[in-house]
Amino acid sequence: MLLFAALLIFPPDVAQRLIGGALSDGAAYARLAELSDTIGPRLSGSPGAEAAVKWALQKFQQDGLSAHLEPVKVPHWVRGEERGEILPSKYAVGHPLALTALGGSVGGTATGEVIEARSLPEIAALGEQARGKIVFLNHTMGVKGGYGDFVELRTKGPSEAGKVGAAGVLLRSLATASLRSPHTGTTTYDPGAPKIPAAAISVEDAELLRRLLQRGAVKVRFALGCRWLPDADSANVVADVRGRELPDEVVLLGAHLDSWDLATGATDDGAGVAIVMEAGRLIAKEHPRRTVRVVLYMNEENGLAGGNGYAAAHQAELSKHVAALESDSGAGRPTEVRVHAGAPGAALLAPWLTPLESLGITEVIDGEASGADISTLGPASVPMVAVRQDGTHYFETHHSAADTLDKVEPEALAKSAAAVAVVAFALAEMPQPLPRPAPTLEPHRPEGPKPPAH
Amino acid sequence: MLLFAALLIFPPDVAQRLIGGALSDGAAYARLAELSDTIGPRLSGSPGAEAAVKWALQKFQQDGLSAHLEPVKVPHWVRGEERGEILPSKYAVGHPLALTALGGSVGGTATGEVIEARSLPEIAALGEQARGKIVFLNHTMGVKGGYGDFVELRTKGPSEAGKVGAAGVLLRSLATASLRSPHTGTTTYDPGAPKIPAAAISVEDAELLRRLLQRGAVKVRFALGCRWLPDADSANVVADVRGRELPDEVVLLGAHLDSWDLATGATDDGAGVAIVMEAGRLIAKEHPRRTVRVVLYMNEENGLAGGNGYAAAHQAELSKHVAALESDSGAGRPTEVRVHAGAPGAALLAPWLTPLESLGITEVIDGEASGADISTLGPASVPMVAVRQDGTHYFETHHSAADTLDKVEPEALAKSAAAVAVVAFALAEMPQPLPRPAPTLEPHRPEGPKPPAH
Repeated sequence: MLLFAALLIFPPDVAQRLIGGALSDGAAYARLAELSDTIGPRLSGSPGAEAAVKWALQKFQQDGLSAHLEPVKVPHWVRGEERGEILPSKYAVGHPLALTALGGSVGGTATGEVIEARSLPEIAALGEQARGKIVFLNHTMGVKGGYGDFVELRTKGPSEAGKVGAAGVLLRSLATASLRSPHTGTTTYDPGAPKIPAAAISVEDAELLRRLLQRGAVKVRFALGCRWLPDADSANVVADVRGRELPDEVVLLGAHLDSWDLATGATDDGAGVAIVMEAGRLIAKEHPRRTVRVVLYMNEENGLAGGNGYAAAHQAELSKHVAALESDSGAGRPTEVRVHAGAPGAALLAPWLTPLESLGITEVIDGEASGADISTLGPASVPMVAVRQDGTHYFETHHSAADTLDKVEPEALAKSAAAVAVVAFALAEMPQPLPRPAPTLEPHRPEGPKPPAH
Repeated sequence: MLLFAALLIFPPDVAQRLIGGALSDGAAYARLAELSDTIGPRLSGSPGAEAAVKWALQKFQQDGLSAHLEPVKVPHWVRGEERGEILPSKYAVGHPLALTALGGSVGGTATGEVIEARSLPEIAALGEQARGKIVFLNHTMGVKGGYGDFVELRTKGPSEAGKVGAAGVLLRSLATASLRSPHTGTTTYDPGAPKIPAAAISVEDAELLRRLLQRGAVKVRFALGCRWLPDADSANVVADVRGRELPDEVVLLGAHLDSWDLATGATDDGAGVAIVMEAGRLIAKEHPRRTVRVVLYMNEENGLAGGNGYAAAHQAELSKHVAALESDSGAGRPTEVRVHAGAPGAALLAPWLTPLESLGITEVIDGEASGADISTLGPASVPMVAVRQDGTHYFETHHSAADTLDKVEPEALAKSAAAVAVVAFALAEMPQPLPRPAPTLEPHRPEGPKPPAH
């Protein structure tokens, strides 16, 4: 659905303040720098996560939003020391492995011969051959992406390998670039399956394993110091710009405050946090018709306790959640708007989005627009809207030690904040809300779909 | 000096066998894979270095060359455990530092406030301000290169910082790309200056330090487990294709067999080793007029014992070394030939290099053509010839844990081997040897000039 530049439904002065503010004041980047550099990694249950909750509450209050915490219990997994090696054999020296535990893995040591599998069915097909061995989960994710195609190897592969008696799992990192850098991410064990240690190895180490397997048998050993602690108390941070006419109708802007522990989570999802906070800050001055609610979810990465907790706590109000938008695709420039609100949704929204043309967005696409945290609102038929972003470099650093502030281009971040501000204001101001789509059947997902880079 | 395709001085059948052999048999890549994957890192004094010496001797013999070892004593430095952190302050949490000791650093722990310097004069200018502090050596090497401009910060910076009383040094890695990856490389202490621990931090960590310094004082602590052991016995591997008419006249092809310890040194300098071995193997079947000698030097990275040792042992024959070529620029495709042999050298050589046109090389450039190891032959007026290679990606992995075989493109490697084979055969076959240049004054360099990427 093309935008209609001739129509000036969106108040031009508001557009100017939202876009001009986002592009000129550097506030989103400054806030992201503060979150990344002064608070640091924010895995659920960690001191960093708790510091981030307090920080966000204070910032919202400074911005003039009405903010509060909504408690959630979160899983508490900690990494510890970790190391691994390819053992020397008669035809090759040993090599250290650049590895990192998958989030949620049990700790322990695993030693065994390596056996390769490239899909969940291939793991199952190994059967008795896998007993006592280390299953090497290989795949073809490369510079062109493919995260969505292979993420199941990480989330389910270790459990599948446990079922066939493997001693451990080494996953080729899900990454589009590598300088010997392993990428973590959550894995989930089936309750009935044996829990075996599981780690990601760098792309280089995966390539080395593959080459050595062509020479003969390969044995590895790795030790993970990770462990599970009792669930921790944490919170979603919820901040409202109260609607001037329809305060009970809510446009929800979400991002997740937690991050993996290996880096400062500047792009996953510090950028999303900065984008929705900036949108909230700018919209607070504009007094839209409906309430705009910024929700900084806790525990997107390894549990979705925040997404589930919000949906449960607000069940009674979800029929008045008129739209939800999640920002969890990094810090790239905005590329398009998607809306999932039944067929007429895009047509209804398009005339309101003409200010986005100045940001290079000329179309509203009717399509999938959900996110991990807001997917929990799907059963309540909440319309979903997404500002898609350029993801060219997203999976180069995703879930790795290199997800740091230097990967963020301030101008691109500001443009995405501007786009989200415009979209949110439009949703909060348009006379008729979006039509509601059919409810999604799945109440929630254990881990949300990260948007593939391509 | 343009090549002259019309002239067919170079025997066409030989050109066909040299180029066709290099491009079709995959031998250079297979050998590099064996060196990288089955022997691994090869820092001077390590078991890997000694295994590589034995391996190379055996391979030369298999290839039909007359090979022997020439003993050299090498420095023996080992890395050990290493870690560091930015300490928490009143305005920021602590952060782990991705760091690695500079080669040759003393071990130990250093704790102190960070003070930045960007050049050797800036270190000296710090004076008393630096006492007890950690000098952060920052610079602007980036994606476009600049290694040659900043390498002095690494080789001399720690010693300069010691002179002004610093407790330690953290160097921004010399790199054109980073995914939180520190790059090592040698540092040399002045005999009279205090020796302080020195490490490279990743580009990301350098950027973080810079940002935190803008917020206020920053304190770091790091601990290096590296240490010096007694000098070790090692060897250069020297292999001759004996000349059919002028066996005493030698065309020397050099590369270095040692590597840094963080990775398998696939591009630095496994690729050079594979290139010159492949050239030797192919030329051995062609019985050129002069002797072609392949020298795999030991200890280029941290001492140049091999380069110095060869020059000393062969002093009496250096007047009959008619040319020297060093391959130590990675595995990229060949881009040009350089010759340093006095003005008429390029004109004399050009007609002999017409087969290189099929590899995309159309010119011989009169210019700097030396290398670290062969620079020790400069005082004896040995003409230098270089096959320059595409270095676009060289400094992305140089001296880091990511210098692994997957960075090598087999076709580019084969082309460089073909080019070196052609150049070496030409030098060994042309009736008149190259004119000899004026002797270089500097007898040798502590560390050779790595070619800048751009």
